[in-house]
Amino acid sequence: MRTVFFISDGTGITAETVGHSLLSQFEGISYRQERIPFIDTREKAIECRRRIDEAGVRDGVKPVVVSTLVDPAVSEPIGGANALHLDFIAAFIAPLEAELGIKSSRAVGRGHSQATSHDYALRIDAINFTMAHDDGVSNADLDKADVILIGVSRCGKTPTSLYLALQFGIKAANYPLIPEDFERGCLPGGLDQYRQKLFGLTIAADRLTQIRQERRPESKYASLDNCRWEVEQAERLMRRENIRWLSTTTMSIEEIAATLLQTIKLDRHSY
Amino acid sequence: MRTVFFISDGTGITAETVGHSLLSQFEGISYRQERIPFIDTREKAIECRRRIDEAGVRDGVKPVVVSTLVDPAVSEPIGGANALHLDFIAAFIAPLEAELGIKSSRAVGRGHSQATSHDYALRIDAINFTMAHDDGVSNADLDKADVILIGVSRCGKTPTSLYLALQFGIKAANYPLIPEDFERGCLPGGLDQYRQKLFGLTIAADRLTQIRQERRPESKYASLDNCRWEVEQAERLMRRENIRWLSTTTMSIEEIAATLLQTIKLDRHSY
Repeated sequence: MRTVFFISDGTGITAETVGHSLLSQFEGISYRQERIPFIDTREKAIECRRRIDEAGVRDGVKPVVVSTLVDPAVSEPIGGANALHLDFIAAFIAPLEAELGIKSSRAVGRGHSQATSHDYALRIDAINFTMAHDDGVSNADLDKADVILIGVSRCGKTPTSLYLALQFGIKAANYPLIPEDFERGCLPGGLDQYRQKLFGLTIAADRLTQIRQERRPESKYASLDNCRWEVEQAERLMRRENIRWLSTTTMSIEEIAATLLQTIKLDRHSY
Repeated sequence: MRTVFFISDGTGITAETVGHSLLSQFEGISYRQERIPFIDTREKAIECRRRIDEAGVRDGVKPVVVSTLVDPAVSEPIGGANALHLDFIAAFIAPLEAELGIKSSRAVGRGHSQATSHDYALRIDAINFTMAHDDGVSNADLDKADVILIGVSRCGKTPTSLYLALQFGIKAANYPLIPEDFERGCLPGGLDQYRQKLFGLTIAADRLTQIRQERRPESKYASLDNCRWEVEQAERLMRRENIRWLSTTTMSIEEIAATLLQTIKLDRHSY
């Protein structure tokens, strides 16, 4: 098995994200992965090189190195390793410098917003807001929400809300649609006045029953009949109230979030 | 002002993450950004090219395009735009194909784990677990936690726990250390038996007072004297109980998470 290294002077999360994206293009490849963050001195880079070469000898096959090291003095030793080196900085910083007409600062650890920045404070605010408005627990301050997700239990509202807050600094409240709402035939109390912030999530009934069975096997709540009824009622409600919505059945959290942002043209922050 | 486009056949989140990382290397550059996700046909790519060229004319300066389009037939029209094109797939897929000795599938939208995969289910489990174990609300199933964060109120436990769950599929519980714990001089009830899972967060008292003042101005809770006392007591407790810990004062969520994973060698999943 081949080893893939994600090496960075910061957290290594960008290197890893990109590396996964590239490697996912090769079917049937299995590999061992090592993320090595915070490589910000030449000494640490030399130790990395040793680990890379060791892995190559052990595996009997050249390691792949995905790196985002900005300081050439730090990345140089890693260039000497016996590996396929995919160096994002070397490949892209030089053309950017030429186009922008300025030299990059080559400062380490810039990939994420600084913990003391204004943007970062907004992001933490969004996380706090989203946590305080999960699953309809509070109606307070809903006027400050950027978006209010609605949908039946277990259709993906909570993970999507959290992702919107963490990744984009968006204040996302979420409200469950429950049988009582369907019987009354209207939106949960208080949401009416925030209609322009509402966004619906729905899901195929057979997928919903699978998810619910894992939590409450053999319950009426999880039964296919009940899931079908709830989904049908929820979609009817959303259509009648003219609320934008999408089906999460085969979508990852990232895909739901990106689709939602594209639909409602909400993209204030990103990190 | 220059426009930077992040263009992808998937969510565009990878393109944007990488683009931010590259652009953060140039001080004092301000730019308008547009993320264009789900470009999976030639027709959509031609429309993209129009938007790029329009932005260039409007701005009077060449746009920068960061793209992760895997299908050459789709990306070709964008290559014709009058822009600096940073094409991650073109730059890195070819060398990977040569090294791995196989052709890539050039399948679109592979950047994130599939919504129906086993890994994805583990990640959703981790999010549910983390939400159910925020702020010490539940002692149930703590044996299933991968890590239990402890620390004074507002030192970063909740955002870090959520990030660990969303990004790495890690089940992260968190427990506040409160004045009652300091008076008793021991860990909150029930945590003793999970000592090997504990990880402490601390923070400089002057930063903590700033954060708390925003939530409860003029309170004893937020006062510098009280913050100093709580932080001192918490650090003393963690030292005495021999718990690994780090200070979050100047760290972003990503940096806290990456440092924690490196320290406790916990890195089971990633997305």
